[in-house]
Amino acid sequence: MLVWLLHYRGGIDYDSYDGYRVFNVHPFLMFCGFIFLSGEAMMVYKTVKAEHFVQKVAHMILQLGAFVLGVVGICAVFKFHDMQSIEDVYSLHSWIGIATISLFALQVKQKTQKIPWVVGLFTFMFTQTQTTRATLLPWHICGGRTLLYMSIAAALTGLMEKATFMQLSHSREARLLNFLGLSILLFGIFVDLSVALARYV
Amino acid sequence: MLVWLLHYRGGIDYDSYDGYRVFNVHPFLMFCGFIFLSGEAMMVYKTVKAEHFVQKVAHMILQLGAFVLGVVGICAVFKFHDMQSIEDVYSLHSWIGIATISLFALQVKQKTQKIPWVVGLFTFMFTQTQTTRATLLPWHICGGRTLLYMSIAAALTGLMEKATFMQLSHSREARLLNFLGLSILLFGIFVDLSVALARYV
Repeated sequence: MLVWLLHYRGGIDYDSYDGYRVFNVHPFLMFCGFIFLSGEAMMVYKTVKAEHFVQKVAHMILQLGAFVLGVVGICAVFKFHDMQSIEDVYSLHSWIGIATISLFALQVKQKTQKIPWVVGLFTFMFTQTQTTRATLLPWHICGGRTLLYMSIAAALTGLMEKATFMQLSHSREARLLNFLGLSILLFGIFVDLSVALARYV
Repeated sequence: MLVWLLHYRGGIDYDSYDGYRVFNVHPFLMFCGFIFLSGEAMMVYKTVKAEHFVQKVAHMILQLGAFVLGVVGICAVFKFHDMQSIEDVYSLHSWIGIATISLFALQVKQKTQKIPWVVGLFTFMFTQTQTTRATLLPWHICGGRTLLYMSIAAALTGLMEKATFMQLSHSREARLLNFLGLSILLFGIFVDLSVALARYV
């Protein structure tokens, strides 16, 4: 992605006067920030060898980081549309993306009982009994996986939109973009598999 | 999808002299054939109230139908490219789609011991002991879910490519396409959730 954005697309700069360099913040933060961090957060219970509480805190911090970077990434594309007077939110990519980040914000529904200092931050959270927590856990896990695949779908439609818009066909850049898309898809698949199959190990 | 293809895009006809009507076979068969049938096949163990053997046969027949319709759908787009002298397989959509259908063909790795009459059909299958079967089952299930999301990703990138290519922006057709994309995504999510959460019911 960095080769694509820095070598082919002129760099990444949120404060630039060049709209396209502002735009480049968007794919960079949405993948390297949002998708990558939330994927890592999903795997934390298997990758961080520590107490369950520490894992939960790491999970939450990573998800929070993912969300913040995701929001900045979305701001970048709105700024770009503003600079270039392009209409907002008309494509399938934008619809899927906005649905994903909105549902992502709603996923913050657990982990409140043991980490009271977050309650102030997310006032819409509610405290839960042990039973409610156990009932909600499978929904939280499946919901998380769904959101992972939604974010992957958003990323791929975004790359597809960009590639079609630039009318790349058999150029080197087109092939780089396709491999980037496949890598993002594989990242999502491997996160899913390592979380899902870990149950059986 | 039918409103889009029949009302806005001039109809569906594999044998037409009009390339675009040949092309329309592709989205129709890939969704209404491939994705829809394989989604139904994944849910068969919950939706068909019958013996396990009958469920397995139904699962297999539906997957087989999905595969055949998928292959015909792919042939349609190659025929269209041929008629219009367009290059094949350059976009991310095509890469994801071909990866999906190829891996889908490889997924046919179980269900051979009890249904001997299929062995002749799929000569690359191998018989398995009960233990191997139990070990492979979670991989088959996770692999199936992965393929479901890959096919959804392929469908969405396809719609995105078509919409960007036609330069639809805020037209009625664009909105129809976006809702079609969201519906396909929701279909995938609900198939996943109904298979995954059924374990806890």
